[in-house]
Amino acid sequence: MAEFDLIDRIRRRVHTRDDVVLGIGDDAALLRVPAGRLLVVATDTLNAGVHFPEDTAPADVGWKSLAVNLSDLAAMGAEPAWCSLSLSLPGDDAAWVDGFIEGFLELAHAHDVALIGGDTTRGPLSISVTVHGFAAPGCALRRDAARVGDDVWVSGSLGDAAGALVQWRDGGTRDAFLRSRLDRPTPRLALGVALIGVANACIDVSDGLLADLAHVCRASGVGARIELDRLPGSGALRAAFDEAGRHALQATGGDDYELCFTVSADLRDEVERLAREAGTPVARIGRIEADGGVRAFERGGAQWHPDRAGYQHFG
Amino acid sequence: MAEFDLIDRIRRRVHTRDDVVLGIGDDAALLRVPAGRLLVVATDTLNAGVHFPEDTAPADVGWKSLAVNLSDLAAMGAEPAWCSLSLSLPGDDAAWVDGFIEGFLELAHAHDVALIGGDTTRGPLSISVTVHGFAAPGCALRRDAARVGDDVWVSGSLGDAAGALVQWRDGGTRDAFLRSRLDRPTPRLALGVALIGVANACIDVSDGLLADLAHVCRASGVGARIELDRLPGSGALRAAFDEAGRHALQATGGDDYELCFTVSADLRDEVERLAREAGTPVARIGRIEADGGVRAFERGGAQWHPDRAGYQHFG
Repeated sequence: MAEFDLIDRIRRRVHTRDDVVLGIGDDAALLRVPAGRLLVVATDTLNAGVHFPEDTAPADVGWKSLAVNLSDLAAMGAEPAWCSLSLSLPGDDAAWVDGFIEGFLELAHAHDVALIGGDTTRGPLSISVTVHGFAAPGCALRRDAARVGDDVWVSGSLGDAAGALVQWRDGGTRDAFLRSRLDRPTPRLALGVALIGVANACIDVSDGLLADLAHVCRASGVGARIELDRLPGSGALRAAFDEAGRHALQATGGDDYELCFTVSADLRDEVERLAREAGTPVARIGRIEADGGVRAFERGGAQWHPDRAGYQHFG
Repeated sequence: MAEFDLIDRIRRRVHTRDDVVLGIGDDAALLRVPAGRLLVVATDTLNAGVHFPEDTAPADVGWKSLAVNLSDLAAMGAEPAWCSLSLSLPGDDAAWVDGFIEGFLELAHAHDVALIGGDTTRGPLSISVTVHGFAAPGCALRRDAARVGDDVWVSGSLGDAAGALVQWRDGGTRDAFLRSRLDRPTPRLALGVALIGVANACIDVSDGLLADLAHVCRASGVGARIELDRLPGSGALRAAFDEAGRHALQATGGDDYELCFTVSADLRDEVERLAREAGTPVARIGRIEADGGVRAFERGGAQWHPDRAGYQHFG
């Protein structure tokens, strides 16, 4: 399969949008950004064996490689529009590419995201995606605006993806729901947009709750206190892990792609109403404090010490 | 070296621009596109051992990974503005990263391109870059607008990069100029902008002249006739290869990142004037014909048959 056949194979299945003046097939894409809106850009790469188990279904790899990028737009409260895809493949497995593109475009179509170009090369399996979206000036959710006294909230449930990885590594029981949370994360785009003007700071949980919340606190010059027994956990996670294991997964496990955000304490009802409208469950898990660092506490008030400070790709 | 240290290491050395509202350090970048201009986006990935020899100096890898992307903007006649960088590294070699960033930012600064974000991950050495630029609506140079009777032009010299690869593989004499053309290609940005409103079609020569011109012809529904003895060759290439070898390198060798463009035959003087002003030599190498395919001819009129149809990353 030559590179150009591969590109044609992808191009035939792509839908477009009115703001795509020129899509796949030239040296670059030509795109129209709506007047008065900011362009929002994020890039994330997934490498086989590092960011997904080697046995992950190609459609799931496709879904996930776009989902982790859309999650970055969700964390900014941005509306997604376009993406580009760089695909490095060790061989010429047409069935793998077809599966990958199916999963990738399934998520793209669900959010009206047009694939506008990219690159296919030979190399170890690696997928690099850049997503583009829009936000109104002054409205994007940032990491650096958490305020002392804010509640800390998180969407969905935490620890599922890390729980699936533990089960995959240990080779025992493997829960299908947990694995689906690892393979097909849900970018919380509707919630992100709904939180504009309400949340003070926002980040997506990719490295682990405590690690990602520490980014917010460092950027905002504040600290945070988290109550472990308030962290939302799925039924599947509760069934598979005891409380100690669950807390470690929820507090430090990566790859959940939930939103963690801070909101003034007088807007609790508003957050719950917006979350209902967005169809996304949310939980209030702690508060922003003046002193530095992120501390987590067990039920009863004892401070909790994680074994590790969150997933790092290096180190 | 943790991922966050690496990002700080990069961020400290980056310059910014007025249209960057929020750069490196949040979930996504916030950018201002000038009113009335189109956004132009291109993505290219370089993998070690596929797109550059493993022994390439890190600063050259940095330069090249941005240069091949800026070359795509040049081929559209776009003005570059921003780039994002996804860097997959097998280890934590701080000296390598510093060298890479030095070469990358040297070229970025030369064209006032701001690095606005990206991703650093563990994995086989791979660099994926997305560049963003601007073009006026209706003005970008495309592949699909070559017209019968157009002259075919090319910038700079052809075959140098492929000549360097041959020398590198054969292990004999290695010419430093040829190697510099492989390692530090020059994106022809000034020429690309100058050709707006003059050139009918344009592409950059990354896969090889005949292969890339074939993309133009296919997209435009035309053919082309190329005179081999008109292909511009550097003194270093002439010194290192005989005529037959040189013609093969010039016609089919990839990685030159020169512009190949077609212009109405009554604008020859205008092209030469614009090229002089842009500081970029150009050569008229053939013409666009009605029938399909790209044919090359030796001096004397015999049709030339390449051993291969141009470099392909797959196959």
